[in-house]
Formats: sequence, C-alpha cells, structure tokens
Amino acid sequence: MTGFQPAFEHYYAVIMAGGGGTRLWPLSRQTRPKQLLSLFDERSLYQASVQRLVGLIPPERILVVAMPDLARQLHAQTPEIPHENFLQEPSARGTASVVGLAAAALHKRDPQASMAILTADHYIRDEERFRQYLQAAYAAAQDDYLVTLGIEPGFAATGFGYIQSGQALGEYGGSQAYQVLRFKEKPDLPTAQAMIASGDHVWNSGMFFWRAGRILKEFERQMPELAAGLAEIESAWDTPAQQETMQRVWQTLTPQTIDYGIMENAQQAAVIPAAGLGWSDVGSWDALFDFLECDTDHNVLMGAPQIVSLDTHDCLIYMSQERRLIVTIGVEDLVVVDAGDVLLVCRKDQAQRVRQVVSQLQKAGQDYL
Amino acid sequence: MTGFQPAFEHYYAVIMAGGGGTRLWPLSRQTRPKQLLSLFDERSLYQASVQRLVGLIPPERILVVAMPDLARQLHAQTPEIPHENFLQEPSARGTASVVGLAAAALHKRDPQASMAILTADHYIRDEERFRQYLQAAYAAAQDDYLVTLGIEPGFAATGFGYIQSGQALGEYGGSQAYQVLRFKEKPDLPTAQAMIASGDHVWNSGMFFWRAGRILKEFERQMPELAAGLAEIESAWDTPAQQETMQRVWQTLTPQTIDYGIMENAQQAAVIPAAGLGWSDVGSWDALFDFLECDTDHNVLMGAPQIVSLDTHDCLIYMSQERRLIVTIGVEDLVVVDAGDVLLVCRKDQAQRVRQVVSQLQKAGQDYL
Repeated sequence: MTGFQPAFEHYYAVIMAGGGGTRLWPLSRQTRPKQLLSLFDERSLYQASVQRLVGLIPPERILVVAMPDLARQLHAQTPEIPHENFLQEPSARGTASVVGLAAAALHKRDPQASMAILTADHYIRDEERFRQYLQAAYAAAQDDYLVTLGIEPGFAATGFGYIQSGQALGEYGGSQAYQVLRFKEKPDLPTAQAMIASGDHVWNSGMFFWRAGRILKEFERQMPELAAGLAEIESAWDTPAQQETMQRVWQTLTPQTIDYGIMENAQQAAVIPAAGLGWSDVGSWDALFDFLECDTDHNVLMGAPQIVSLDTHDCLIYMSQERRLIVTIGVEDLVVVDAGDVLLVCRKDQAQRVRQVVSQLQKAGQDYL
Repeated sequence: MTGFQPAFEHYYAVIMAGGGGTRLWPLSRQTRPKQLLSLFDERSLYQASVQRLVGLIPPERILVVAMPDLARQLHAQTPEIPHENFLQEPSARGTASVVGLAAAALHKRDPQASMAILTADHYIRDEERFRQYLQAAYAAAQDDYLVTLGIEPGFAATGFGYIQSGQALGEYGGSQAYQVLRFKEKPDLPTAQAMIASGDHVWNSGMFFWRAGRILKEFERQMPELAAGLAEIESAWDTPAQQETMQRVWQTLTPQTIDYGIMENAQQAAVIPAAGLGWSDVGSWDALFDFLECDTDHNVLMGAPQIVSLDTHDCLIYMSQERRLIVTIGVEDLVVVDAGDVLLVCRKDQAQRVRQVVSQLQKAGQDYL
C-alpha cells in the first residue's frame, strides 16, 4: 500500500450514458435509449444510476458522458448535476476515448481525482450494498490498482464477459481484492459452465475505478496516440481553446473499447467480486422477470396496462398507452410489449432475438428504430 | 306435390341482420356487429349475404330486418336495396317476431310470396352451389313444407344445433328433401360424436324457406297471440296506420325464437342437407383459419398488418391500424387482434372464451364493448 490517504472529496463518478441499446426494443429506440426508460420504478435507469450514489458522491462530482442530443435529455432528468459536468462526445469513438476524456477533464480539475466509471443502463437492487462495494473499489484505486467490480455469476451466462481472478491483493472496505488473471470474452455455454464451476470467475460489470493520473499513465503506456490527444485536450480544458481543441482532436481518435484497449493488458489490474447486488444489465425483456414484481400468476405487468387475463401465466406485458385494453387468454411464457407504433409478441426464451428484428429493419431502411 | 308452379318472381329473401355477435370481439362491437365486418374479402359479411343472391333474387325482392341504427349502416352498405325493404325492429323481440313481421309485410305485398330466411353474418365459400340449394329449398317450399337448409357436419361441433332427418320427401332442384324428425340443441361432445356417427344429422344453419301464407298459418296454429299481432300489422301495412300500429303491437309481443316457437313442433318440416358449401358461422376467431388464405408458415394475416415474424406458425394476426408494426418471435397457435383500443392475445383453441371476457366487461360496466 502507498501512503496515499483516501479522501472522499477527491472521489468522482463518471457515468457513461452514451449507449443506444436495442435489446429492449421496441420500447428503447435510437432517440430513447434504454437508460432513459423507467422500467423498475418511476426513475429511469439513468436517474437510478445517479441516485444510488447519494451519500457517497454529490452531484457536483458526478460527470456524465454522452452525445449532445442525448446529453440534453439526460440533463433534463438530473437537473441536480451541473451543466458543465456533462461531457459531450462529438461522435462515437469507443469507451477508451470516453474514459480518457473524462480522466483528462477530471485530472485538470483535480490532480488527485479518483474516478469510478459507471454504467447508466444497468439495474442494481441493493443500492446500499452497492455503495459499500464502491467505497471498497475507490479505496483499492488509491493503491494505484486499475480496479474492476466483478459480479458473482448467478448462472452460466453466455451474454457477458468474464474475469478470472488470481491471488488476493488485500482487503478494502471489507471486500477482498484480487489480481486479475485475465479478461475473457462472451463464452459459449460449455465454457461458461466450466468457468462457473471453477469458482474463480466473475462477470465483467463494465464498472471500473482508478485514479485519474494512474489511468492517464496507462493510456501513455498502452495507447500512446490516444494519450497524446488526451494530453492536448487536458491542456486546453477550461480554457477558451477547449471547444476547438476537443472537436479537432476527437475526430482523429481511433475507436477502441476500454476492455480491449486497456484492461486486457493492464498492469496492476484488480477485481473486487461483488455478491448480492441484484445486478442486471437489463439485456433483454426476459431479464426483467428476475427483478420485477409479478402477480400470483407470475405475470409481470408494466406501464399502465388495463388488462383482463384468463389462464395467463409467466407473461410480461408492457402497455405504453393509456385508454387501451389488453386481453390475454390461455397464454404463457410470452412477452407482449405495446410501444404505440410497434407491437411485440415474443416467446420469453427468445426475447434476445429482438436484436435480429432491429437489424432486419435497419437493413430494410424501415422506420420504428 | 301440389299443382302450384314455382314462379321466381314470387321468391323473396329476408336477411335477418339484427344480431350483435360478440364472438369476434374486439373487432365486433355493439355498434359494429360481425355482419358489418369485412373478414374474407372487401365485402362485409352482410354485403356478401346480399351479393350471393345475385342472379336469383334481385335487390327489389330482398328484405332486411334490423334495429333502426343498424338498418342505416346496412343500407349504406347495400344502396341497391330499396329503402322500404329495410324492416326496422323497434326493439328486440326474438327471431319468431322478426320472421312473422317479414311474412306479414310480404304477404300483404304479394300473397303468393315465398320467402327465404337468411343470415347476415355467416360465410359461404361456394356461392354458386349455395344458389342451387336455394332453388331447391324454394321449390320444396312450394309444396307447403317448412324447409330448413341443413349443413353436412364437418366435425362433432358442440357449438351448433342439429337436425335429425327422417324419411325422404322427394327431390327438389337436384337435392333430396327429408322429413325433420327433430331439432336438437347444442350437444355435449359425446352426443355430438354419436350424432355424426349416425349419419342422419346435419347442423342447423338458421336458414329457412316457406311460403309467406304457409308460415302465417303455422303462427296461427302454434303462436296464436303473435299471429293476431301479425294480422293487425299486415292489415295496417302500407297504409297511413303502419307506423303507429307497428310500434303499438310490437311492444306487446313476447320474445321467442323461430326454432323454439315454430320449428320444433312444426307440421311438414323438411330439411335439405347441403354439402360442400364451405359454410361457417364465423363463430370465433379460430374458425377463420379454415377459410382464410394462410402463408407458408400457416399464418393468417388480416387487416393491414406490417409484420415482421421470426419462427411464427399457425397464428392469426389482425391489425386494424395502419402505421403500426407487429413483430412476432417464436410463437405459434396464437390469435393476435389489434382493434385499436383493444389488443387481444389468445391461444387459438381458446378463442371462444372471448365471450367470457365480454361478459366480464359488461358486468364491470367497462367500455370497449
């Protein structure tokens, strides 16, 4: 451990809110991505991702990165976050560029900054426990680790990346941190089952923690071109040249993800396995069954449905329109989503194929996207 | 046989168009009953019931009976039928009263009138063959039989009444007429199976043929009170007193069906079994599968659906709205009806339970009816 003392006032959170997931289509759209949707309570997933930091990170130290149009919608949902904390990506350049931009901006603002990279469109049921893991991860970041929060896997998922942990590195805030042996891409089912059985693999949550200065050094080591651009942006940040420099440098950046660009070959990567969060990436309609309240027939009713059901079991029904009645008779294991201009009727265990439909519509130049 | 010669110019058709079937709900409604719907082609079921008489009964000799509001809609769909041929029921008094009213009006107009009582909301695929049976039935009616057209049963239906035939009465227009042994109510399945096995039972189509004078005599014999009322209406018909008499007498009539009131104990009842008509009472959504064209996945698409389907089989999909996309994934044997304000998702083999839903909504004082 270094002699550096954790100082909460240097803790920042960066919410990467730029994604445009199509997996909850037809409710999520290009102009209304998943993070803007209210699925679990009256808060959107994005609002929840901000509000679960309450008591730990004040709004002044929360940064949000998104494209300009989306940033406006996000700001409207969280007016408590200062306007200047919304960092606008001029165009999509991958998560490595986004993380780098946030690190540069934060490092300029506070050379002692430690930052959490958080997602805007995931669900976490136990917010108190989440804050405990956040504190642990921030603490580990003070020891110059590049920390990732791993999710204790609930099943042999093939839709997530995995992280294999090695030797224990020490305890932080009551949680054990481990060396990262390797990052693994989305596996096939036998591989996933083997990883679950091994006991030393966790899901890659996409949440990272590090000191801003530390990650900038790592960019220099692994992605020198990006690091050079970031240095230029940092020096212009909070000066009259900020806007022009940002626009000019950004378009030269090569798109890359933080996982491939940095984490896979990072020095001092650490993982803190998190259990009991009730975490979900809300990656498809059927994922909602695990987290939403259901009625006595195991049906999940969302939106404002007026519904009459006979012999209907294990269905998810979403009705976006008022003054509209849904009647179901003798059906089970169905997802029915009425999004106004699109009606989806889908077998529950095939909900992930919604992406295939979106792809078809894109190719056909159709609307409804 | 009597010496009476069939004379086509005395043949009339009476279309009983007053029903308000709820079994194709949510497409059929109180104010838009099934007979007004276009299900099989651009014609409504009612229009088809008029147009399949072409070449046999001209519009001037087609009468339509319905309640006033509905009569207006019906007339708009068949402007070729003279206004005065629309007989308006002031209130619902059962099919016996409706048949009696039509018989009285026709008898006043043409004492030699023979009348077919036809339905407005059934489907008949082979219209040419239907006209052949009509001619046979009219011919048998000239011999003073009370003739009913029976449908050769395609399966052991529990949703129809049956007619058991007895001895052969002779051939009319190439079809054999039989004595009616008895009318039987909707049976349970074993009874239906036994009736099918017997070979001498047909479905009761609800189509009847008789001379106007003959049925009025039968009303006198079996329903003398109704007959007295009808006599009063007939004498006032086509006089200035018609309207007043009709209103006054009608409200005194006891509601009764023609089946119970007349046919079950009729003298000289005859049945002509009809085969190969492609007849359907269109009694529920699943009945449509037998008569509508389907795609290579055995899906029936109705209305104006924009649809994207993956692994979807044996489904009926009705979309009443344009600019709306339906997406189905991995479903089979479903009926999906989007009627604008109501969305129905129903297992095909439970389609008849729609009536149960309508009944629930009525009891709850809900809209959507």
